[in-house]
Amino acid sequence: MIQEEVLDFFKNSDSYLHNVSVDNVIFGYHEKELKVLLQQPFSLDKWTVTGGYIMKTESIEEAAVRIAFARTGLRDLFFEQFRSFGTPQRSVDSGFSAAHLTALSGMEVPANSWIFEYFVSVGFYTLTEFSKVEIRKGDLEAACQWWPINDLPPMMFDHKDIIAAALKALRLHIAHYPIGYELLSEKFTLPEIHSLYETILGKSLDDRNFTKRLLATGIIIKLNETKKIGAHRSPFLYKFDKEKYAEGLKSGVELAF
Amino acid sequence: MIQEEVLDFFKNSDSYLHNVSVDNVIFGYHEKELKVLLQQPFSLDKWTVTGGYIMKTESIEEAAVRIAFARTGLRDLFFEQFRSFGTPQRSVDSGFSAAHLTALSGMEVPANSWIFEYFVSVGFYTLTEFSKVEIRKGDLEAACQWWPINDLPPMMFDHKDIIAAALKALRLHIAHYPIGYELLSEKFTLPEIHSLYETILGKSLDDRNFTKRLLATGIIIKLNETKKIGAHRSPFLYKFDKEKYAEGLKSGVELAF
Repeated sequence: MIQEEVLDFFKNSDSYLHNVSVDNVIFGYHEKELKVLLQQPFSLDKWTVTGGYIMKTESIEEAAVRIAFARTGLRDLFFEQFRSFGTPQRSVDSGFSAAHLTALSGMEVPANSWIFEYFVSVGFYTLTEFSKVEIRKGDLEAACQWWPINDLPPMMFDHKDIIAAALKALRLHIAHYPIGYELLSEKFTLPEIHSLYETILGKSLDDRNFTKRLLATGIIIKLNETKKIGAHRSPFLYKFDKEKYAEGLKSGVELAF
Repeated sequence: MIQEEVLDFFKNSDSYLHNVSVDNVIFGYHEKELKVLLQQPFSLDKWTVTGGYIMKTESIEEAAVRIAFARTGLRDLFFEQFRSFGTPQRSVDSGFSAAHLTALSGMEVPANSWIFEYFVSVGFYTLTEFSKVEIRKGDLEAACQWWPINDLPPMMFDHKDIIAAALKALRLHIAHYPIGYELLSEKFTLPEIHSLYETILGKSLDDRNFTKRLLATGIIIKLNETKKIGAHRSPFLYKFDKEKYAEGLKSGVELAF
């Protein structure tokens, strides 16, 4: 199985761009937890974000979507390109080598293959409800799983920096654009959306101030319904105003928590 | 001269990464004008931003600095990476071809050279006082000159989109980071910094509100000196607080005009 995948890749090796690849930082949110999807190559003790090569027939955005679909089974994810990474030292001493792939596949992988050259990586992040994801491990990976954003395993290449940069971009983004739509139920309470923002921003937000600013954007609408969450607690339900939300995604909103 | 440059490039063609390049959008500000530095390849009627290939021994940031220095003679420019661009259609029908380079150089440039493949381009922008720049035209260019941001010539490739994206990023950036330092004299008046922001943002800003927000950041200090700009007009001079400015560059300030 592994041999087949490697063989297939080298057979179609002319289909890919050299020296440039895509890395996807897949963030997952679920009930006050923010995680990131990582994979561990066989027989190496470090982890990587999900990523891959760019086909000559596709755009970098199409590559990001294809590669994320392969691991999550999800299409229509919200994607944001946040930065590209390129230094000659990126993959030096990573353990990713011809010897490693040869041992793994049982076929001779040439040491001068273009896959061991210096790659510039275009970084994308995406944010999804992680309970929706059915993880599909790659054949060259020993594992593919969610890790808490505050408790990452040892990372290969510069992937620790890539995750840090993606998180910074996500936090800047969420202060200017409404990107919570896919992460909440259609109807949600103020405490639920408050938790979402606190979890992603990694800090507590003053309750009254948060609510005031969020309502000022006009992107959420109060419903004439409540949700019973305790003997004496039944907060009102809200939903996103789809038009205002779409407008906010285009032009930005001023949350600036 | 042209032949020599092309010859030299192909001789050292192994020194460069394939399929990935750098484009620099060099913005220039001078007295209420915002311009962009463009170049026109010989015998083509369209223009490009300045850009080039990445050497195998340098990072993408080092490539951006080297390429900008070659055209402007300036080092220590403020650089910001804003986005990468990659679609298979980017350079189709651009006029940039083996036939064109062969005619130009008098030497046979192979049609299957890697330089005609699909390139992902990493976009950087920089902002400088354009009166400081001594333009150095490349040997393959018929012209290299400043163009007003609102009156661009026909552009090659997707460079019109690249400039638009760079301008959008610059405008977002200037609302969150103090990046006016190099564009003003050491001591400046409030009308001068007001004009700078209006010119870059491409819109008028309420005078009182602008001043209030700018002073609230603490990044400028009022001096006990005035500048005589008319018979009855002597506005106070200001300067940047270097520490607060450096801190603002790191952590951001909230201008949000």
